[in-house]
Amino acid sequence: MRLSERILSPTQVNTTIESGMKMDEKNDSCEIQIRVRYPEVDQMGALHHSRYWVYFEMGRIELLRLKGASYKDIEASGVFLVVARVSANYRIPARYDEELTLRTRMVNMGQVRIEHEYELIRNSDQALIATAKTTIASVDREGKIIPLPESIRGSG
Amino acid sequence: MRLSERILSPTQVNTTIESGMKMDEKNDSCEIQIRVRYPEVDQMGALHHSRYWVYFEMGRIELLRLKGASYKDIEASGVFLVVARVSANYRIPARYDEELTLRTRMVNMGQVRIEHEYELIRNSDQALIATAKTTIASVDREGKIIPLPESIRGSG
Amino acid sequence: MRLSERILSPTQVNTTIESGMKMDEKNDSCEIQIRVRYPEVDQMGALHHSRYWVYFEMGRIELLRLKGASYKDIEASGVFLVVARVSANYRIPARYDEELTLRTRMVNMGQVRIEHEYELIRNSDQALIATAKTTIASVDREGKIIPLPESIRGSG
Amino acid sequence: MRLSERILSPTQVNTTIESGMKMDEKNDSCEIQIRVRYPEVDQMGALHHSRYWVYFEMGRIELLRLKGASYKDIEASGVFLVVARVSANYRIPARYDEELTLRTRMVNMGQVRIEHEYELIRNSDQALIATAKTTIASVDREGKIIPLPESIRGSG
Repeated sequence: MRLSERILSPTQVNTTIESGMKMDEKNDSCEIQIRVRYPEVDQMGALHHSRYWVYFEMGRIELLRLKGASYKDIEASGVFLVVARVSANYRIPARYDEELTLRTRMVNMGQVRIEHEYELIRNSDQALIATAKTTIASVDREGKIIPLPESIRGSG
Repeated sequence: MRLSERILSPTQVNTTIESGMKMDEKNDSCEIQIRVRYPEVDQMGALHHSRYWVYFEMGRIELLRLKGASYKDIEASGVFLVVARVSANYRIPARYDEELTLRTRMVNMGQVRIEHEYELIRNSDQALIATAKTTIASVDREGKIIPLPESIRGSG
Repeated sequence: MRLSERILSPTQVNTTIESGMKMDEKNDSCEIQIRVRYPEVDQMGALHHSRYWVYFEMGRIELLRLKGASYKDIEASGVFLVVARVSANYRIPARYDEELTLRTRMVNMGQVRIEHEYELIRNSDQALIATAKTTIASVDREGKIIPLPESIRGSG
Repeated sequence: MRLSERILSPTQVNTTIESGMKMDEKNDSCEIQIRVRYPEVDQMGALHHSRYWVYFEMGRIELLRLKGASYKDIEASGVFLVVARVSANYRIPARYDEELTLRTRMVNMGQVRIEHEYELIRNSDQALIATAKTTIASVDREGKIIPLPESIRGSG
């Protein structure tokens, strides 16, 4: 699938496409819009640090969908993408009701693992709220590492 | 199993046992201790109303355990206890780090349904924070209503 | 007001806003679209019953926004809308990745309380997943009951 | 405060104290017991990766309490400990109802930052489920970096 052939849904906007990237010479990224929900914010008035990972997972899933793969279908076929390693830098707090843009970029795909990078941006002033990296791995129902499914590998 | 044979763990204390109750003439209840976690509290400084249900479920599960039934094992056997109906009154807010006592009482058990009542109490002054009722139903993996498993019915 | 008269925004079904409304003889409602997130679903494969309340709160907040009131601003002015009483019927499970429509309707507004009703509907077949009712009350920073702010009352 | 003077609560057990550590030549750690709650587990049957951070925060808070400092009181005094940086390795899944031990260790304390390391262990077989590191920073109500409060620094 070519990036140029992507049909963008209202909430999925492709970022700049650069050559010279991994993953078959293509940048592979998407943006989604997220509004911070009331119970996601703690009594400090900030999006709790645990909840960023829910957003980042949404980014990965929408990136898959954009590439034609449904994570729901992938799981139904017996393949599970589990999070193996993460890191994040929290720069400024996100507040209740703020509208955020999450940029998710697939930066590396091996036989069994995919690495993503994330930027969470406040829409009102484009301030960078947080950055993160994750490594997910492909496992079967018993948790044994298995090759990534073709629906993902083929769509790189 | 007789109530008098119950071995109470430090966090499970049986409440008063009265005669004339449903469920084989016995009151069927337990108390568990819960400390409010930081991200369970919203920016209002109150335990978010959605999270009380997590506590109430913990009460149901500990009541089952006290009666010798493990919900984990029940699910492993292909039976799922799903929540069909709930109601709650929120009286005063619970705050971060407060220690609470949850009283869970089984008030009715039919062929396929169990009704529980809950009281959530602030330990510092015994103030009543909330009351609630739930009806759970027994279903199989496909969601079809089935009789409650013997491990629950027999332990009434 | 007839449903057919509604002007639909992509994620919000707007009700016509008329002056001098009291919501006697009038429908006061909105619809929002929600996609079930992965960690909102439990190991039973169903949207956990506690998380419906997060959705219902989103419905209330969007209904306020539609009527010109921002709950963020209301809180900033020192008024808090707390949940006092709830009830729900869970009819069929919602699954991961499903697209749902939440219909929120304000059914009563007093001096200090508002009652809402909710219907959660599965988009694929219009099946009714759950119904619920809530009563919220207006309190100040100390939790004392106070009249609903004009931004809400005036917009009825 | 000397470690030897600590009064351990039933759920807080101090780990071995080794010399040659940072923080005034003392190891500074605690263990807490956590049972995995039903809605913390996703449809994969695993504790969702976002929820480990809730546990790690509980470990930090109990370590503070063990050292005589209440995070609730610290916030009441206008000081907030915000998470600035995290990383984690998820090794094996944690399951619903499993009993886990969380070892939290303070590995470094500067003027405004504290670094912690975490090990999450399955009680049944002592398997290492996950490891993590966090950096928290001390800020005032406006989010400006300020020195760590004396209640924390003095208790190192």
